Amino acid sequence: MNIAILLYDKFTALDAIGPYEVLSRLPGARVAFVAAEPGPVRTDNGMLTLLAERSLEDTREPDMVLVPGGPGEVAARAGGVALDWLREADRTSTWTTSVCTGSLILAAAGLLDGRRATTHWLAFDELRRLGAEPVDERVVFDGKLVTGAGVSAGIDMALTLVARIAGDVVAQAIQLGIEYDPQPPFDAGSPHKAPVEIVELLRSRSRFQEQEGETLAAPR
Amino acid sequence: MNIAILLYDKFTALDAIGPYEVLSRLPGARVAFVAAEPGPVRTDNGMLTLLAERSLEDTREPDMVLVPGGPGEVAARAGGVALDWLREADRTSTWTTSVCTGSLILAAAGLLDGRRATTHWLAFDELRRLGAEPVDERVVFDGKLVTGAGVSAGIDMALTLVARIAGDVVAQAIQLGIEYDPQPPFDAGSPHKAPVEIVELLRSRSRFQEQEGETLAAPR
Repeated sequence: MNIAILLYDKFTALDAIGPYEVLSRLPGARVAFVAAEPGPVRTDNGMLTLLAERSLEDTREPDMVLVPGGPGEVAARAGGVALDWLREADRTSTWTTSVCTGSLILAAAGLLDGRRATTHWLAFDELRRLGAEPVDERVVFDGKLVTGAGVSAGIDMALTLVARIAGDVVAQAIQLGIEYDPQPPFDAGSPHKAPVEIVELLRSRSRFQEQEGETLAAPR
Repeated sequence: MNIAILLYDKFTALDAIGPYEVLSRLPGARVAFVAAEPGPVRTDNGMLTLLAERSLEDTREPDMVLVPGGPGEVAARAGGVALDWLREADRTSTWTTSVCTGSLILAAAGLLDGRRATTHWLAFDELRRLGAEPVDERVVFDGKLVTGAGVSAGIDMALTLVARIAGDVVAQAIQLGIEYDPQPPFDAGSPHKAPVEIVELLRSRSRFQEQEGETLAAPR
């Protein structure tokens, strides 16, 4: 299975690396990081650079496409080669997937019209505006279109995909291999669980509320 | 706070990127990926390349050091500039940390002698052999030495560190920002929870049992 993870300037690293860590362990899988041009791509905060191995032009008919989110999604969905490539790749893919605000890019490419999908909790309104039907769940399947919620949800999405593709035993073996037995020190990872004042803090600083600089609140 | 994440050939990406995603959001933090030489560093499976921004020589007195694990730890702890650098960095660091088998590198540098520490569940015996006192917990503090269990545990470790450094509100805001509300599709992330046959499968294929090629079972 050929899996292409789309990189673009100012993507959020964990959106891509969480699923990569799971999917790369799927027997027979080959994960490639791809971008408009091969070469260095910087993450949202400028503190990390990944290398895109191949250009989009050289990445034809991947079995799975994965689109991470991040503040760079705004530029990515404004147009350019990525949207055309996504439409083309989706024609032949077995799975077309995203994490966090990556679903806004899929939506901008016209791939989520009327489809059930999720995104970062701060971006539901934007996802609806782009034609999808937002669903407040961590991993959402609508046929071959699979979307994960914010940032860390890509790990859960990838394990769910592995179970569908290769069965529960393989998914459990990978989960145990990466010792994914989460024990967050707080139960604050969802707006339904976090203290109200923290939810409001992030909401007030979100780029989906105001077009200001990036902060803690940014979904990235 | 200057945070240096050590890269080396065949490290495991999520060990490094999980904590990076959390720690980079700590107000005032600056995360740098460092290696013996600056430039491209490939992950354990060869499917991803990260750029090390700085050489170890140019990375002096970081406030926090983080050592990821991965099959490359064997070469990393066999000697070379990384061990000397770790010993030097630990003299002035506020926090010296590792994820997964990164603790074997800290131990090889002599930094875990008689200290309570954790590692990937398959590597406890090796950690003991290297002089540490293995503790079967997800995140282990022994003074300023902080170690996380396998691969994905680095996210929990980093959130716990952020709470210690900047308080619970900041840690919860970061957790909500990355929507870390884990919902793995199976409860198989620990050898105490996974089906026995899957635990045995991974154990039988572990590089800590036999010196063979990497598989699902590798802690990476």
